[in-house]
Amino acid sequence: MAINMAEPAKALKSDYDLLMAKAKDIIIIGSIQSLASWDMETKMPPKGIKQRSQQLAILSQIEHQMTTSSEIGTLLSKIEKHVAYETLNELQKRNVYLMKKQYDEQTKLPEKLVVETARQQALTIDTWKKAKTAKDFSMFKPELEKLLALRKEAAKILMKVKETRTPYDALIDIFEPRMTSEMIAKIFGELREGLVKIIKKCATAPEKPQASILMRKIPPSVQQKISNELAQFIDYDVKSPKAGGRIDETEHPFTNGYYDDVRITTHYYENNPASSLFSVLHEGGHAIYEQNLNPEWLYQPVGMGASLGFHESQSRFVENIIGRSREFWTYFYPKLNLLASNAFSDVALDDFVRAINQVKPSKIRVEADEVTYCLHIIIRFEIERELIANKIAVADLPEIWNRKYHDYLGVEIQNDSEGVMQDIHWASGYYGYFPTYALGNIYSGQLLTKLRKDIPIWQDQIRTGDFLQVKKWLTENVHQHGNLYDPADLIKRITGESLNVQPYLKYLDEKCAWIYGY
Amino acid sequence: MAINMAEPAKALKSDYDLLMAKAKDIIIIGSIQSLASWDMETKMPPKGIKQRSQQLAILSQIEHQMTTSSEIGTLLSKIEKHVAYETLNELQKRNVYLMKKQYDEQTKLPEKLVVETARQQALTIDTWKKAKTAKDFSMFKPELEKLLALRKEAAKILMKVKETRTPYDALIDIFEPRMTSEMIAKIFGELREGLVKIIKKCATAPEKPQASILMRKIPPSVQQKISNELAQFIDYDVKSPKAGGRIDETEHPFTNGYYDDVRITTHYYENNPASSLFSVLHEGGHAIYEQNLNPEWLYQPVGMGASLGFHESQSRFVENIIGRSREFWTYFYPKLNLLASNAFSDVALDDFVRAINQVKPSKIRVEADEVTYCLHIIIRFEIERELIANKIAVADLPEIWNRKYHDYLGVEIQNDSEGVMQDIHWASGYYGYFPTYALGNIYSGQLLTKLRKDIPIWQDQIRTGDFLQVKKWLTENVHQHGNLYDPADLIKRITGESLNVQPYLKYLDEKCAWIYGY
Repeated sequence: MAINMAEPAKALKSDYDLLMAKAKDIIIIGSIQSLASWDMETKMPPKGIKQRSQQLAILSQIEHQMTTSSEIGTLLSKIEKHVAYETLNELQKRNVYLMKKQYDEQTKLPEKLVVETARQQALTIDTWKKAKTAKDFSMFKPELEKLLALRKEAAKILMKVKETRTPYDALIDIFEPRMTSEMIAKIFGELREGLVKIIKKCATAPEKPQASILMRKIPPSVQQKISNELAQFIDYDVKSPKAGGRIDETEHPFTNGYYDDVRITTHYYENNPASSLFSVLHEGGHAIYEQNLNPEWLYQPVGMGASLGFHESQSRFVENIIGRSREFWTYFYPKLNLLASNAFSDVALDDFVRAINQVKPSKIRVEADEVTYCLHIIIRFEIERELIANKIAVADLPEIWNRKYHDYLGVEIQNDSEGVMQDIHWASGYYGYFPTYALGNIYSGQLLTKLRKDIPIWQDQIRTGDFLQVKKWLTENVHQHGNLYDPADLIKRITGESLNVQPYLKYLDEKCAWIYGY
Repeated sequence: MAINMAEPAKALKSDYDLLMAKAKDIIIIGSIQSLASWDMETKMPPKGIKQRSQQLAILSQIEHQMTTSSEIGTLLSKIEKHVAYETLNELQKRNVYLMKKQYDEQTKLPEKLVVETARQQALTIDTWKKAKTAKDFSMFKPELEKLLALRKEAAKILMKVKETRTPYDALIDIFEPRMTSEMIAKIFGELREGLVKIIKKCATAPEKPQASILMRKIPPSVQQKISNELAQFIDYDVKSPKAGGRIDETEHPFTNGYYDDVRITTHYYENNPASSLFSVLHEGGHAIYEQNLNPEWLYQPVGMGASLGFHESQSRFVENIIGRSREFWTYFYPKLNLLASNAFSDVALDDFVRAINQVKPSKIRVEADEVTYCLHIIIRFEIERELIANKIAVADLPEIWNRKYHDYLGVEIQNDSEGVMQDIHWASGYYGYFPTYALGNIYSGQLLTKLRKDIPIWQDQIRTGDFLQVKKWLTENVHQHGNLYDPADLIKRITGESLNVQPYLKYLDEKCAWIYGY
């Protein structure tokens, strides 16, 4: 006997719409937090910090109340148990799933723990800044220990909610849904092996790029114009009356915003113009991802990036696969010289391209080249995995860090400011975050393989300054899917294969073979 | 028989503290709205407008929910009827009064109306910008009509709550508490009469300032430096690591913020440096008012300016009474010439001071001289009073506007961008706002009379670049009182007399007598 589902389906849709109205409010509050953070980093007068922390605190509180409201709990149980549940389409089910996940996680964390973590986080970041300036890990240690203990407590709770194998896996899941430390360990092993081979080939190669030629003095005002030109190339509009972006200057570059208002920042070093060149392309890659999300999904949980790893795949794709390619510079090099009063007119195009692709093990992650970069990540992953598993203590960090940098990269760390204290992530309580940087690179390699099949002439397009075809491909293959799939499913859907490090290694090896002539 | 009030007073204080905690949350939400508005006017990418209106709408909704919460209603009735009510001090009673006033007004406004108004406001401002650029009132008209209808609806509701004689009076009360259109009409009559006399004296005077000498080309980057110098003179910190202010550029200058984060904007016209000079002093006057509020009253209802009129008294005091005085320019003229590569080195100090005080009827309010300025306000007052009373329609605005400008100021409006669309106020839904500009001037005249008595040598101080004594006087007499008194009470408390237009007219007449040699 067939049951008429029209009436129940209508009732369900009405509950679903109510849930989506709640989701919209939560997302808009998030976008306001985002604006307040952007302003704090870019424009806020220094004295405004106390008022700003009050503003951020109240916004967090409102968001938490909204996310954990009993109305949402009731709607979720009604929808999930609903007789007509199967009448929801894939998109609607995903929205419900994402709301449920958020609700479960947020309601299980005791408010006391959340508040205490936020407080300790601010304190630890503040101490980190001071300790980093003072090059004194012992200053940082006690605060980091407190914050780590709080994150471990949260991880234990989240492990049960998310049903992960370890507490660390529960933290990874925050940034890269359903990714596990076991999968990461396996793929990072393969990645490391491949990278070490390439690094050795470069080290013994006959040709050596001259990276020092990049150190030319270009005034920040000119670098600004170059940034605008780069933004125009990737179709990230920061100037027209319809612009949905803007570029400002901060100590550390970042991307902020959503859909029609996505802003990036960069840092202009007068004697190192390459720094802002590539940070603008990197953040621009993040920005166009956010801007190209399906406009129909605005203010819905699916209308977000798929994961931090996928976000990073887009930024690294634009920064490296496009931005460090010979094709791009064939197009852009004359423009650069035009804008920068021929600052590089004595440098041949190929020498410039080689210089921006130099492979050289170094101490600082954010300054690392494409090939050695992931080794910095692997070190951090290995350390934080053991840290959360209580296998190592905060006190051991400097020693372990320095040893790994010696073993993996062959560099000797002189002090903890250029060592274990170089990044803000652990001071912010972000454990499980670092692996996503390397995952992004791996995804980008897989995407490149697929792009080559779909648009065999993509490099010719870039050479003539046409990024729009590649952008369209990225939009259709990545951006438009938003958060409809977990990253593991998304990469398979796009490329037909699971997470695979070989395409990325192949890309690097081919590039280095040309750069180093091996 | 004496009643022991200790226990009831303690219970009352506990309710009062709960009420103040609610007040704090509401004020912080207000400060977030303020930030979102500032960003919208200064930094937001154009495409962000829709997202911004959603953000502003949800903040309005949250603010409305907080303001009208039943907890506040309950606390207010408990406190007002409390046996120990008289144990509250004047400050506490004022806080309760202000919360009650807000609660009564807001509970009567339907949430739908509030949210819809916020949304329409953002859209109307956006349309106003486009229509103004296009010099096309017909573009602006439909959005303005929608917004006006919403404001009229609110005015009718507020009239009952506030027990005002007309809906328009209820709107005036938002900006200038307890001021009425009848009082304004009366005092504006006296003001107009006095101004017309002065204008006539100037027009027939033997000496004429040469305002054209002000039209010197000064690059915006230099004007920026001059702005910073002016900010420093009035002790408005925009540069140090402890700065609580900043200066940005917008089409129309404004002040935004509260206590430790107060931002001003200006507009740099390359060939008219005087424009930004005086807008920086004007907005700076607003800014120091906000920054000098009693720090103990932060996040309390009393920790606000007394009214828009009082706010304007401070901006006009700094812009005109200080900023257009011979004393100030004795100090600042060499600095100006130093910063601006001697742009005015061929102009004698007195000729410069005469030029910046030229009296000449003109079309644009924000560019009007001190004497004709209030006629612009009187025109707007007369028009909006009739607009809210349904005596004229939006469609009639251009014609009525242009006729009044002809009649009152003798100028012919060529298009609506220099006419009825010149100001943002009506596009923002601010009706009842314009009169406060003239009230501010009137208050500033009364304050000047008192300052002369209290600090007879104030002009000598300004002449040596010392504004700090006057600032201290303003702080003690105006800023520190915050919103403790209604404006009518405050002006009486400071000067010993009620609202009186004569001191302002006397100040203008004396100044013009010197400028024009009559």
